[in-house]
Amino acid sequence: MKIYDRPGFPNAARIRIVLAAKGLDSQVEFVPVDLIAAEHKQPDFLARNPSGVIPVLELDDGTLLAESTAITEYLDNLDGNPVLTGRTPREKGLIHMMQRRAEAELLDAVGNYFHHATPGLGAALQVHKSPQWSGREEWGRREGERAVRGMRYFDEVLRRHDFVAVDQFSMADITVYAGLLFAEVAGLAVPEECFALREWRVRIAKLPSVKDRSGQALVAQDLRRLGIAA
Amino acid sequence: MKIYDRPGFPNAARIRIVLAAKGLDSQVEFVPVDLIAAEHKQPDFLARNPSGVIPVLELDDGTLLAESTAITEYLDNLDGNPVLTGRTPREKGLIHMMQRRAEAELLDAVGNYFHHATPGLGAALQVHKSPQWSGREEWGRREGERAVRGMRYFDEVLRRHDFVAVDQFSMADITVYAGLLFAEVAGLAVPEECFALREWRVRIAKLPSVKDRSGQALVAQDLRRLGIAA
Repeated sequence: MKIYDRPGFPNAARIRIVLAAKGLDSQVEFVPVDLIAAEHKQPDFLARNPSGVIPVLELDDGTLLAESTAITEYLDNLDGNPVLTGRTPREKGLIHMMQRRAEAELLDAVGNYFHHATPGLGAALQVHKSPQWSGREEWGRREGERAVRGMRYFDEVLRRHDFVAVDQFSMADITVYAGLLFAEVAGLAVPEECFALREWRVRIAKLPSVKDRSGQALVAQDLRRLGIAA
Repeated sequence: MKIYDRPGFPNAARIRIVLAAKGLDSQVEFVPVDLIAAEHKQPDFLARNPSGVIPVLELDDGTLLAESTAITEYLDNLDGNPVLTGRTPREKGLIHMMQRRAEAELLDAVGNYFHHATPGLGAALQVHKSPQWSGREEWGRREGERAVRGMRYFDEVLRRHDFVAVDQFSMADITVYAGLLFAEVAGLAVPEECFALREWRVRIAKLPSVKDRSGQALVAQDLRRLGIAA
């Protein structure tokens, strides 16, 4: 299998955590995609994924899988023991519900804030992000507010439960964690009073499959290269 | 099981098609939600689904499942033969990829167009749709253009394949079909030249599990009640 991605970016982190959790790291060849140069918006990459986003998984038979949820479904089911996406109908339902909320209310909202209300990933990429639209920055700021509301929602959930969806670590935890990684890069702070979300984050960061897989140092490097971060 | 929904609306149609395809119709009690009166934005409903959208599935043990993908995962796996969400890791991956694209590029884009660039579902609901934001209509129109690009993408896929994701009817077909139902209500036409998408739509509409389950007559009634449609 090949994974086209860029370590340090939130959806790349999601799949790297899945690979580690499933013990599949060594079976994958990673192919780097230069997001700063907007390589994922060029014809070669778009032929692999018309949505123009990373990561993409290429199977040995040439099948291409995009979208982190889909890639996670594939990888998690290979061994017949889908601990991350659910082993029973009820687990599958709960994990997919919280996974979708984590994308819609947190990760996607942070992404919209980052790309529309901040300098994002710099000039080469910004041309692909509707610069000509006058309402763009206001929309981006509203999305940032929505992301913070998402954090408060997950904080409430985590005041009552140890994990986001079911009583063990799942795809939904990975997505919330990636959302918080991205929020940090984008400059959206987790509200002080969200103590359950903060405590959960510290706990998740220490899991063997999560530790050292966020690649945040690389993102910081990219942003410095672009003159966006100090 | 109970389903909280409103027949005729796109996500309600998705789950009603799933129930029919799985032969589960008779095991469900439907509880109507008055979307026109914004019942889904009131405290009673929000306690069941904080995202404030239909449908919601309530299991006999009280578990609440929202998000159509999650409800579909639950229902499709009950009999151990998940034909709609994928029986192998590869099928699961492909179906979830195309399902996500169908939501992001078509169904959600149509919804954003409908609620922001048209009168949507009338005054009671529109207060929940950011009326105070000046960029709203322009954003809605851009989302409408994105939905039409989504139609062109699925047309291309269907020029090469009989179904959206795998070689049989799946969750991804249901979501694209619901997206086209919604587009019709919202007044977004499928481009003339998208002949493969149009042909597929006619074929899908005749499937026993799809026929008569769209509830479009009811939506037309609602819109007439609101004075929005003739």
